[in-house]
Amino acid sequence: MTRTVDAIHRLDLTDPLTDHVGRYSTGGAIHLNGNSLSPACDGLDERLRETTARWASDQVRGWFDAGWLDLPRTVGDKIATLLGTGPGRVVVPGESTSTVLFNALVGALRLSGTDTRPELLVEAEAFPTDRYIAASAARLLDRTVVAVPAAGLDAAVAARGPRVAAVLAAPVDFRTGRRRDLAATAAACRRAGAVSVFDLSHAAGVLPVELDDVGADLAVGCGYKYLGGGPGAPAFLFAAADHHADLELPLTGWHGHARPFAMVPEFEPASGIDRGRTGTPQLLSLVALDHALDPLVEVGIDALYTRGVALAATFLEELGRRRPDLAAAVVGPRDPARRGAHLALQLPDAGRTERELATRGVLTDSRPPDLLRVAFAPLQVTHGQVARAAAVLDEVQEPIA
Amino acid sequence: MTRTVDAIHRLDLTDPLTDHVGRYSTGGAIHLNGNSLSPACDGLDERLRETTARWASDQVRGWFDAGWLDLPRTVGDKIATLLGTGPGRVVVPGESTSTVLFNALVGALRLSGTDTRPELLVEAEAFPTDRYIAASAARLLDRTVVAVPAAGLDAAVAARGPRVAAVLAAPVDFRTGRRRDLAATAAACRRAGAVSVFDLSHAAGVLPVELDDVGADLAVGCGYKYLGGGPGAPAFLFAAADHHADLELPLTGWHGHARPFAMVPEFEPASGIDRGRTGTPQLLSLVALDHALDPLVEVGIDALYTRGVALAATFLEELGRRRPDLAAAVVGPRDPARRGAHLALQLPDAGRTERELATRGVLTDSRPPDLLRVAFAPLQVTHGQVARAAAVLDEVQEPIA
Repeated sequence: MTRTVDAIHRLDLTDPLTDHVGRYSTGGAIHLNGNSLSPACDGLDERLRETTARWASDQVRGWFDAGWLDLPRTVGDKIATLLGTGPGRVVVPGESTSTVLFNALVGALRLSGTDTRPELLVEAEAFPTDRYIAASAARLLDRTVVAVPAAGLDAAVAARGPRVAAVLAAPVDFRTGRRRDLAATAAACRRAGAVSVFDLSHAAGVLPVELDDVGADLAVGCGYKYLGGGPGAPAFLFAAADHHADLELPLTGWHGHARPFAMVPEFEPASGIDRGRTGTPQLLSLVALDHALDPLVEVGIDALYTRGVALAATFLEELGRRRPDLAAAVVGPRDPARRGAHLALQLPDAGRTERELATRGVLTDSRPPDLLRVAFAPLQVTHGQVARAAAVLDEVQEPIA
Repeated sequence: MTRTVDAIHRLDLTDPLTDHVGRYSTGGAIHLNGNSLSPACDGLDERLRETTARWASDQVRGWFDAGWLDLPRTVGDKIATLLGTGPGRVVVPGESTSTVLFNALVGALRLSGTDTRPELLVEAEAFPTDRYIAASAARLLDRTVVAVPAAGLDAAVAARGPRVAAVLAAPVDFRTGRRRDLAATAAACRRAGAVSVFDLSHAAGVLPVELDDVGADLAVGCGYKYLGGGPGAPAFLFAAADHHADLELPLTGWHGHARPFAMVPEFEPASGIDRGRTGTPQLLSLVALDHALDPLVEVGIDALYTRGVALAATFLEELGRRRPDLAAAVVGPRDPARRGAHLALQLPDAGRTERELATRGVLTDSRPPDLLRVAFAPLQVTHGQVARAAAVLDEVQEPIA
């Protein structure tokens, strides 16, 4: 056991990314909940104070003189580096994930052309808001939502072929952590002539989704999970460059206009990804997201991914050594290449376990009825901490059958 | 002149609301631009620090333990007191005005029933985003936007009668300041069987719009103008209680679900105004709006309105005494009861005048081609300051024909 502790200690000592961990405000806790809400990164209070100071000195001119008006694009460009795409393809309009997804799905259904393609395919296991928003977009455009099991999605796209207008899918199952082969899904969509829309909420900042290589059409994602923008941080929209000219989004706010300050009566969408802007963005929350992205962009998605995989491996090793019954309770793939940045353990009373862990300073998350989720945000925990979390889980969890 | 200065000084000395003015961070400027972006109110940095501290101590539990999840409703209830309506009728979903307006307009068109009512009436002079969003909502629901001059709106509603599904109108013309008789427009809508939607962006916090008395159906408004929530502050949605059960909004995010944390696959709208919620609200911007509302709610809309009218009167008196040509350049009604909280002056080069005034510490706003807007946010300026602003305008503005 001593050797293991030493080995873990050595992992932390030799990884230069360990230094980032101290920069996150976790209130002393071991933070394994970045899939839900990441902690704040040092310096945020100062960034916010600078912003309110610019507001006082520049007043409304801050939109121009302080660069606020550019933030939806500059923040989008930062996120783009984490998604395997280039500048000018991601924008942060300053709305919630639900709203940006609505905008994207209506846009996708319109891109798909006439309503001879009656179906919008979604994963049965999708995050609920994805189902709700898909139903709303389909209702408005006289389409039908077809929910299929995630594992059979590509086959369903192929089988339904010309019936499929658009497909909404996620690279990571938010419950089990099971990872989707995005390239295969995007290819299935292309072959069927359907528009692909990916919800990257549980992947952005931890997995290399490689949107350009994959050939994704549209994508959205959440700003407050692994991207760390804080409670309710604004969402992002990605659109492949070859869709920019034809993308007709329903949220035609003035910031998405080609000439927003000309104030002409007819809407003319901006060129490029700027048409994904909506109304005036909520600046304070946008600044907080901008701030949170800097360490992620500096480290880069490949190093983030590698470290996340290593952290999960340390946790699984330690758990397996202590409690084979708990290691066996992990659902989803054992192969790290086939899962996202969180592990899900099937436990008889996951909610109680989550609370017991929290009491002992280990933050996780439970999903009814029986899943405990343990997430490995690359810069927010050390190997020593994840090993300690496994030890605490060993302490609090009764043996399971 | 001395007597005038004394009289103005006395106005400031005797009005207890004068004390509020020093609480706003105007960078030393005379702030007459609250119609565009109000300044911050003292204590905001501390509120933001408290919020980030709760984020650090509570992490994701802050949504429950720190009351964040209630903010869309509690902030909405504060705004309700300024709109002449009761608790549970206003919500701040955490999105931009454009997005909330889209949600409201689609909801209004659906409330209007079948498409035997083909028209959505809007004011030709509406703020551009209102036109853009109306066009988008109408397109999705197979309706036609009919733009009519604001002054003839009520007559147009009456004349078109059963053709009208919904009407979008503003209580204040954002250019001229001309005020609409909301009760008359709401009554015209009722008689025609059309749903009224009001954009209160240029009225909320300065005019008593009396939504309940007026019998408004739906309304939206901006959080960063007179409400003072800061750059891009989130918008609000009002729905009359008798529409709560039937209102079908398109932004069916999980926060608008009857049981958001049950995570069931089908959308079931929350009862009451909570169905106006969308996704997770952007907390920092929502907290800033909450903070800004406290002094307004404390003073109350009647006292705010009275003071705004008095400030405008001081400005007009001083301007008339110094420069009859400039006083005559005010467009829109002279009667304060018939205008909003800003005055518009028609000047040959309003943009240049705005810049000259700003150089001398007087913040106004210009609208191409030839309007200078001067806004009297009740708590943000003293009578002495508005008299001084008139004097500076006298200095910088050439005689006009």
